[in-house]
Parts: sequence; structure tokens; C-alpha cells
Amino acid sequence: MRRQCADGCAVSDRPLPDLALARSLFDALAEKTCCPSGYSRPSYGDGEQIAHDLVRQAAAVLGLESATDAAGNLCMTLRGRDGSAPPIVVGSHLDSVPHGGNYDGAAGVIAGLAAAAGLCRAGIAPSRDVMIMAIRAEESTWFPSSYIGSRAALGLLPAETLDTVVRSDTGRTLAEHMAVAGFDPEAVRRGRKHFSPAALGAFIEVHIEQGPVLEQSGTPLGIVTGIRGGLRYRAARCLGAYGHSGAEPRRLRRDAVFAMSHLVVELDALWREMEAAGADVTITVGQFTTDPEMHAFSKVPGEVRFSLDVRSQSVATMDEVHRRFLRMCELTAEERGVRFELGPLIRSTPALMDDTLRARMVRIAHDLGIPALGMASGAGHDAAVFANSGVPTAMLFIRNANGSHNPDEAMTMEDFATATTVLIELLASA
Amino acid sequence: MRRQCADGCAVSDRPLPDLALARSLFDALAEKTCCPSGYSRPSYGDGEQIAHDLVRQAAAVLGLESATDAAGNLCMTLRGRDGSAPPIVVGSHLDSVPHGGNYDGAAGVIAGLAAAAGLCRAGIAPSRDVMIMAIRAEESTWFPSSYIGSRAALGLLPAETLDTVVRSDTGRTLAEHMAVAGFDPEAVRRGRKHFSPAALGAFIEVHIEQGPVLEQSGTPLGIVTGIRGGLRYRAARCLGAYGHSGAEPRRLRRDAVFAMSHLVVELDALWREMEAAGADVTITVGQFTTDPEMHAFSKVPGEVRFSLDVRSQSVATMDEVHRRFLRMCELTAEERGVRFELGPLIRSTPALMDDTLRARMVRIAHDLGIPALGMASGAGHDAAVFANSGVPTAMLFIRNANGSHNPDEAMTMEDFATATTVLIELLASA
Repeated sequence: MRRQCADGCAVSDRPLPDLALARSLFDALAEKTCCPSGYSRPSYGDGEQIAHDLVRQAAAVLGLESATDAAGNLCMTLRGRDGSAPPIVVGSHLDSVPHGGNYDGAAGVIAGLAAAAGLCRAGIAPSRDVMIMAIRAEESTWFPSSYIGSRAALGLLPAETLDTVVRSDTGRTLAEHMAVAGFDPEAVRRGRKHFSPAALGAFIEVHIEQGPVLEQSGTPLGIVTGIRGGLRYRAARCLGAYGHSGAEPRRLRRDAVFAMSHLVVELDALWREMEAAGADVTITVGQFTTDPEMHAFSKVPGEVRFSLDVRSQSVATMDEVHRRFLRMCELTAEERGVRFELGPLIRSTPALMDDTLRARMVRIAHDLGIPALGMASGAGHDAAVFANSGVPTAMLFIRNANGSHNPDEAMTMEDFATATTVLIELLASA
Repeated sequence: MRRQCADGCAVSDRPLPDLALARSLFDALAEKTCCPSGYSRPSYGDGEQIAHDLVRQAAAVLGLESATDAAGNLCMTLRGRDGSAPPIVVGSHLDSVPHGGNYDGAAGVIAGLAAAAGLCRAGIAPSRDVMIMAIRAEESTWFPSSYIGSRAALGLLPAETLDTVVRSDTGRTLAEHMAVAGFDPEAVRRGRKHFSPAALGAFIEVHIEQGPVLEQSGTPLGIVTGIRGGLRYRAARCLGAYGHSGAEPRRLRRDAVFAMSHLVVELDALWREMEAAGADVTITVGQFTTDPEMHAFSKVPGEVRFSLDVRSQSVATMDEVHRRFLRMCELTAEERGVRFELGPLIRSTPALMDDTLRARMVRIAHDLGIPALGMASGAGHDAAVFANSGVPTAMLFIRNANGSHNPDEAMTMEDFATATTVLIELLASA
């Protein structure tokens, strides 16, 4: 496999990602989309467009063919040897949360470009087309709807989403923002697809890990087994009765904090029990708040507002937690004289990664001597949309300290290179 | 003891409180101090002054002698047979919380006047002077300091309180408000007392019950055993670490809601245990709040702000709860990777009621066939200041539905009459 690059210098046996290109793209992105605290690339806003312009320009230099779909998703194609074989899409998103980090989303698009550049430089044409995809509007902080870009690309975005979902900072609808950004909401509304899932060979997403698992275990690379689905109550309430803290006896209290604390401790025990039995699940009560208008140190608390977020790769596991949670609410209500108003239940479907692709990634990492951890993705990703549409899908996680969605995301270029090396091998051997 | 009233009609053997006077005073108070929602009588404000003017006028009609001290406390004296014997003070406060009820505080002053009127009407001069006292500024919602009026009356208000404590609605100091209301903050500053505790024979306070104990037990009258002291952390924090709800595994979490819920459940168990052992105590976590700026349904919660309020008639019991609570915090911190910042500890001393006075009240209620319950006061009262200054002190609670500090306070005139009947008997036989 020894080859020469364009300027005649010797290159290694294996194709290597173009890290200089990647570094220059990360630097340009950081410079052009930074805000007083962190980075801001609003969905269908200036920062996202700046990122799209940067990668399109880089793709043009590499000789990739760019195409933008009705929703503004950008596909940059490296032609393969067999133009009729189902293409491989390597994609992630270029928007960020407000005051987010520089890597969440962008790392996946830049990994695709660095790999494509590496293939070009190595003179390797992949067996089939490789499309680097920069996806729009993945972060639901801007528009409270998940995976707008990837769903639109597959013709799966419900028409009403265009008119009912408004951006958190402007109050304007998704359709308006799409049109102002120069795209075609009416075509999206009619369900015009950029891809038919059946026509795709694979979808690969590289992403920084958003939890501390790789960092804590000292592993640079994660190979994702599946994307956890979610079961959520975002605005639940436990209602008791206010009373005087010194004057209301224990037996007469309907204390919402005592009741909710008992419920949380039971959820904690349930999680421990299910985890010990090998189930994949997380249980989080991220919000737990007495009413600031009503509470006082000298009042028995009469109300707690709370959220519940349960995630798992298994629908059956989520259902089991849900069933047990509802039963806990019933018993707590009975024992403690409170009642629960749980509000709307929101569910998202888990997405399992493709076993064959995953096995190939494991093998590549092994052959290259790269330590890799099989792990679930607790956060949602565009990959879930492709996987649940029947596209064979895989994800690589890059080790990253300090979580994501904050300015302190900390991915090293060394770990980025590690993941991108596995990606380029996968593409070269596809 | 059969007597005739002024207009010659026969009266019963026992002196009876003047309920018509009481009703007219309650009605006038309600009419003149009502606000869009409830009643407002700010400490050293218009509503409190209106109440003082009303009772002073009623006292004048009864022929009582009125005197106002440097802090604006009003004493209305019914002369007794022996002017040299230590007087009995019957007092409570005339301020209310914002949007409060009509009875908290006022019922005690009006009970004193109705009793004095009843004694006048019955032609009974008590053995010693009876001073009906309308106390200023008991509610610490206006000025964040307890018992301003009663402490000033006894020369116990620290001088700096006049300048450091500001009214919540105006931002002006206590000294300014006292001066504007026509009183003498400089004399208060010098510690000029209205009474020397040693010169008082007794302090009696009638008050609506602020918890549901009498209502729930079907008893019209409470005879107070003691006023619970308090041990408070008003602004404590449990600090963990934020993380992604789906991506952060159980073993790596430092979840402030899980940690705090465990702590609250342990406090609940401690309360149950101590109550079963016969201790007098209440334990309340009235505020429990994840940070609204930082929390999200999809984040492991990194911080909980909370309050703790422990009340008991026994200092030893409060100390025991405190010791156990601190130990719980230590263990929780260790087990859950969180830390606690408890902030300032504020304590108030319990006040025991005088056994002799209490026994006399029990006997009077028994003789009159009035069901009465011996009970602790969970709320603080001016009576605590007198008791802790060495004045033999007693309190009567009037049954009251819906708690206090809200417009729904619900005391019946029948229950008011019951308590006032016990009071008048006590005064007649003093």
C-alpha cells in the first residue's frame, strides 16, 4: 500500500487524516463563532452558517462536490470507485448550544473532512462514494424539536414542525428562519428528501463523548453500542399542603419535600437494583424545586416541581422503570397525603448501532493498537435518526473532559486523530 | 358574686367578656386594614397605627388609662385594688404579615380589652393592676428581627438593631420608621424600659393557634406548655457536580438531589425516632431548590439550596438533632461525593410557661367545663421575651382553621369567647 502524495514525498502504508486541515478548521471556527462566554452557533443562525461556509470552502479545495438540500444540510462528496454502490455518509451537526464548546458536533464534520483529505492525499479512492454531511439544527435548545436537519434530509420532519416550533431567542418559526437563511421550507413541508434511507450504505458519526467515561477510564476512543432512548416528565409536580413549620405536627403534615425525597431515594434504589442486574439505564431528577413564591424556611413545603429523565438502550427497561415509578407515586401519595401531577410524558426511541460496522471498528482499533471502549451513548445524536430509519449506523466517541454544552469541552487533537484514524481506515476498506 | 350592671340588670355569677365590643373591634380592624388580598398592618406603618388608635379609643371609653412607651407600645391599665402589687400584663401584637389574616396578634389585645370591659361591667376590680398591652412590630417579615416591640419595652433591644434593620418594603431603618411614627428611637437606643421584668406579676398572651392541632382534635382551647425554640440554617447548600443525565454513569455521579434526598429521608427517620421516644420536636426542610439558572431535566443536578428548621421546647433536644444532622452531612458528603456549605446557624431559645399560672388555667377550664389541650407553641410569640426575662408567663391558644399569616385564618367568635372567659376568670381571681 506504499504510495506517494501529490508533491512526491513518501507516505506511510496506511492513509492518515489531514490533521493540519482539521486544526485550521477548529481554529477558524473558534475565532469566528466565539462569544463573550464560549461559542455560539445558533441553528439557522449566523454562527451555524459561518461553520457551513468554512467546511464548504475546505471541501472545494479538496475537490469534493458540494450540494445543499432544501433544509440547508450540506453534503460534500468524495467520489468512490463504484458510483452505483450505496454511499457512506459521514456526518454530524454544526450548530452549538448558546455558550457551548467548540467541539460538540463540529468534530464529526471536521473528522469526515480530515479523513477525506487524507484519502485524497494518499491517492485512495474509496470503493463507494463518501459523503461528508454537515447537518443543520441538531441542538434542541434553539428550536425545541430534536434532529430537525437529519429528519428533514430523510423527508421525516412533520410539516407542522415548520410552523409550530419557534426559535428560543427570536420567537420566529422554523419555516421563517429556514427561508431567511436561504433554504426552501416549502419543499421540506412537502417531504422532499435528500436521501432515501434504503439508498444509503451506512451512516457514521464521530462525536466527542459528553460524559466522563473515557476520561475516567483512560481510554481515548469509544465505540458506541447504541443511543439511549429517553422517557421524560419535564414538568411534574408533587402537591402537599403548606403549614407552619413549628406548629404542624408530624402526623398531620403533607410535606411535599419529605414525600419527594422518599420517592427519589426509591428511584436511586431501583437504579442500583437494575444496574446490578445488568440493565442499561440512567435515572435523573435534574430539577427539584419548592415554589419560590410560596416556600419559606418556616413553612412546611406544600409543593415540589420536578423532572424525571430515564434513559436506556432498551425500551423494555424504560417501561419497567416507568411502571415502577408510577407505582412509587401511588404509594407515596397514599402514605404521605400528597398527590402527583406528572404532566406530559415524552419518549424517544433508543437506536442500536449496526453490529457489522461496530465489529469492523473494534477490529480496526485492535489492529492499530488503539484502546477502545464499547459504550452506550446517553445523549441523542443525528445517528439515531439514520439508525431508526434502517440505515446501518455507527458512532465513534472521542475522549473529552468536562462534558459538553459548555465552553470547557476539552478534546485533545491527539484523541481527535485517534478517532479519525479509525474512521479513515473504515472508509478506505469500505 | 351576684352583681348588677350599670343599668341595673342582673348579671350572672361569673364575669363575662364583652363580646359585642370584641366583635365591633374585629369588624373595624377588618374594614380599616383590609387590602386587595387579606389584611395588612405593617410594623410601624399605617395599618398597625390604625389598630392602635382603635384599641386606645375603646380603652378610653372603658375608662382605662393609656400610656405609650418610647417604642410605641401601648399599655391600657385597669386599676386594681392594690396599686402596689406587681401588675398583670395581658398583651399581644397589632401588626400583621402582608396579606395576612385579621386575628393573628389582634385577637390577644382584643381579648384583653373584652376581659377588662367584662370586669368593669361586672363591677369587679381585680386585686392588682391589669395592663392590656398592644405590642409593636412582632412580625419579622417587615423588619427581619424578632420581637422588636416587646424587647424594647423591657429595655432589651440592642441599640444597633435600630440602624441595621430595615423594613422590607421601604428599605428604611427601624429608627427612621419609629421616629416617623412619632416615637423615640433615641430613648430606645439608651435602653429606656417601660417595665422592669422584676416589677411584673405575670404576662398573659391569648393568640390564635397557628397549626391545626386544636381544629383536628376538636378542642376549642389550648393551654400552652412552652414556646419552642428554633435552630435554623436558612441558606444551606449541597454541592455536587453537573453532568449529562444520559451520559454520566451512576458510579461517577455527584448528584446533589440524590444526596439531599437521602439526607432528608434520614432527618425524617430521626424525627420519627425522637418523637417515638417522647421528645418534643419538629423538623422541616421548607426550601429545597436546584439552581434555576443551571438545572435542566437533562443534567445531573450539581447544587441544591435548602433550609433546615428544627424546633423544640428543649435545648437538649435541638442540640441532639443538630449533632445528628451534622454527622449525616459528613456521611452523605463522603458517600455521595458532595459537600455542604451550611451558612449561618441561627438559634432562638425555648421559653417555658409558668407552671402555677398554667395549673390555674387548667383548673379554670376544668371548672367551666371547657375542653382544653396542653400543647407546645411551635411559633414564636412576645410571650417568649417575657418568659425568658423571668416574668411568670402563660399563653392561651384559640382554635383556628387554615393556619395563620394568610387571609383564611378562621377563628369563630364562640372559640374567642371561650378563651376570653378563661382569661377573665384568671384576672378576676388574680
